[in-house]
Amino acid sequence: MEPFPNHKPNPPPIGITMGCPVGIGPEIIIKFFAGQALEPGSFVVLGDQGVLRRTAAALGLTLQVVPWRPGDRPRPGTVPVLPVSALDPEALSPGQPTLETGRAMAACIEKAVALALGGELAGIVTCPITKSALNKAGYPYPGHTEMLAQLCGAGDYAMMMAGHRLRVTLVTIHTALATVAGALRRPEVERLIRLTGSALQQDFGIKQPRLAVAGFNPHGGEDGLFGDEEETIIAPAVQAMRAQGFAVDGPLPPDTVFVKAAAGDFDAVVCMYHDQGLIPFKLLHFADGVNVTLGLPIVRTSVDHGTAYDIAGQGVADPTSLREACRLAARIGANRLALRARAGAGSTR
Amino acid sequence: MEPFPNHKPNPPPIGITMGCPVGIGPEIIIKFFAGQALEPGSFVVLGDQGVLRRTAAALGLTLQVVPWRPGDRPRPGTVPVLPVSALDPEALSPGQPTLETGRAMAACIEKAVALALGGELAGIVTCPITKSALNKAGYPYPGHTEMLAQLCGAGDYAMMMAGHRLRVTLVTIHTALATVAGALRRPEVERLIRLTGSALQQDFGIKQPRLAVAGFNPHGGEDGLFGDEEETIIAPAVQAMRAQGFAVDGPLPPDTVFVKAAAGDFDAVVCMYHDQGLIPFKLLHFADGVNVTLGLPIVRTSVDHGTAYDIAGQGVADPTSLREACRLAARIGANRLALRARAGAGSTR
Repeated sequence: MEPFPNHKPNPPPIGITMGCPVGIGPEIIIKFFAGQALEPGSFVVLGDQGVLRRTAAALGLTLQVVPWRPGDRPRPGTVPVLPVSALDPEALSPGQPTLETGRAMAACIEKAVALALGGELAGIVTCPITKSALNKAGYPYPGHTEMLAQLCGAGDYAMMMAGHRLRVTLVTIHTALATVAGALRRPEVERLIRLTGSALQQDFGIKQPRLAVAGFNPHGGEDGLFGDEEETIIAPAVQAMRAQGFAVDGPLPPDTVFVKAAAGDFDAVVCMYHDQGLIPFKLLHFADGVNVTLGLPIVRTSVDHGTAYDIAGQGVADPTSLREACRLAARIGANRLALRARAGAGSTR
Repeated sequence: MEPFPNHKPNPPPIGITMGCPVGIGPEIIIKFFAGQALEPGSFVVLGDQGVLRRTAAALGLTLQVVPWRPGDRPRPGTVPVLPVSALDPEALSPGQPTLETGRAMAACIEKAVALALGGELAGIVTCPITKSALNKAGYPYPGHTEMLAQLCGAGDYAMMMAGHRLRVTLVTIHTALATVAGALRRPEVERLIRLTGSALQQDFGIKQPRLAVAGFNPHGGEDGLFGDEEETIIAPAVQAMRAQGFAVDGPLPPDTVFVKAAAGDFDAVVCMYHDQGLIPFKLLHFADGVNVTLGLPIVRTSVDHGTAYDIAGQGVADPTSLREACRLAARIGANRLALRARAGAGSTR
C-alpha cells in the first residue's frame, strides 16, 4: 500500500538536453516551446539560460526563459531550464565548438541521465551533439547513444528510427559496407528482433507487433544465386525468434519490404546495414523522424538530425523532429507507466 | 532531299511484347488497351491472339483482338496483334510455363527487335518474362535486357528505373552484396554517368541534366572512417566526368541523396548497388515505375515487375506500370525523332 494514496505529486516532466550550444539545438528548443502543441508544463530543458535567452532574442521571440529545479512544476508558456552551464553567449560563434561548449554539452547529458534514473525526469529527449566536440571535452564515447547506455549501465540496447509510416532497427550501423557481410552474426540478428519486438510492445503499446526482417542481398539472394547470408544467418535467426513467440517474417527482399511496412503490413523492419534502413526511412521521414534508444532503463528519444553547423544561427532550423521526439518520449513514458501500473495491480491481487 | 517531301506515311506504332503467356502480361495488355488514355492507334502487340482473346473474355471485356501487319495503321479501339505464336489457350495453366510458352515468349522479343531495327516499330515495350522459362526454351541469356542488347548488337547499355519523382541507374546489379565493393570499378562508374547523362538529354529531353552519384558507405564513409570506396573509386570517376562536361555531384551520402533527388535537385541518381537504388525507387514508384534500357539503338521500356505467377489468371493485376512504360516509350521515341530532325536540319544548312 502506498503511504499517501490520495497524494498525487506532479508527474515529473521530460527533460530536453540542449545539445551542442553552437549547433541548432538551442534554436529548435526555443521554436519547440514557442509553438508547443503538446501538453504544456510537460517539458523542461537541461542547458544554458544565457544561450537560450540570446537565441530567443535572435529569433524575435519574447518567450521567457526561467529557471527550473527538480520537483518544480514547469510553468506553461515559459522555457523552464535547469542551468547546467553558464557560458558567455557573446563569446560563442555559431558552428564553432570550443572546449567549453563541449563540456557544457556533455554536462547536460550527464545531468539528464542522473535525474531520469532518479525519477525526477520522466525521460529525456536529446538535441544533437558532435562526436568530435564530445571527445575533445574528455568524453571518449563513440557516440551519443553509447554515452547514454554507459551512464545507464545498459548493455543490451539498440537504436530505432521511428516515424508514422516506418520504424527501422539496424543490425550493423557505422560499418564499412564491404565488411558488413563478415560482421553479420545470427545472435545479433536475434537480439535486434527481440529488442525491436519488446519495444514495440512495451514502449509503443502494440500488443502483437508484426516484425519484418530484411534480407541482405538483391532479391534476398534468390536461393543463394547471389549471396547466402539469408540462408546461413538471417533465416535461422528468424526461425529461432519465431519459436520464441515473436511474429516475425523474413528474410524478405530488401527492395519491397519497406513498401509493405509503409503500407501497414509490419510495425517495424529489422535491417542488416545502415543505408538499407536509413535510405527508406529518410525518404519517408526526412523532417519528422525520431531516433529512439531501445533497451535503456530510462525513456530516451532524440532528433534524427545532426548539429547542422552549416545553418546554425541563421534562424532556419526546423523543429519538427524535436517536436516528434518529444511527442514520442511522452507516449513511451505513458506506455511504460501503464505497464508498471498493470504489473503492480497484478502483483497485489 | 527526301523523295516525297509531302508524303507523310503513318508513323510506325510501338510494339508491346506479350511476355510469358501464363504470367500477368496478357492481362495487363488487355487492361491497358481497355483503359488506354494514350494516343489511340499508337500501340500494337506482338503475341498470341488466342491467349489475348481468352484473357479479354475472362476479364469480361468485349474488346476486339484483331490481326495487325507491319505497315498497317492500328485500328483504335481494338487490340491489334502481330501473331507470333498460336498456342492452345485451353491447354495453358496460369503460372505454369511450358516449353511452348517459353518459345512463344522469346519469339515475341525476337520479332519485336527485328521490326524495331527495321523501322517498322517506333520502339518496344516489354511485358515480363522469367529467366528460367527463357533458358529452358533454348535462349541462354542471363536476362531480358541482355537478350535485347545482344539482338541489337549493343555493348554499351544499362538499365534505368524511371518514375515521376526519381530515376536511378545501377553500377552493379545482381551481385552478392559482400562482393560489390570488390566489383566496383572507376571506368564502370564513369560509363554509367555517361550513359545516364546522355539518356537524360537525348531520351528524356532534359537539356542540362543534373546527376547525383551516390556514395557507397554509411554517410559516404565519413572521410575514410568506414570505407574508402568514395575516395578511391567514386570521387575520381565523378571528377573525370565533370571534366568532360557532365553536371554531376557526388559521391553524396546515400541516405539523403534520394531525398534530394525526389525533391527535384537531381534528374537521376547513379547508384552503386541494386538495393541502394531499388529500395528508394520502389518506395516512391511501386506501381508506376518503368524500366528503360539506355544505350540501345531502339527505344525499349519495360514494366518494372515480374510475371507474378502467384496472381496470374486472377484478374487482379495492375496495368499501371505498363501504361507508364508505354507513355515513356512514346516520349523517348518523340525525343529521339526530334533530335534526328534537328541533326538533319543542321546537316543541310
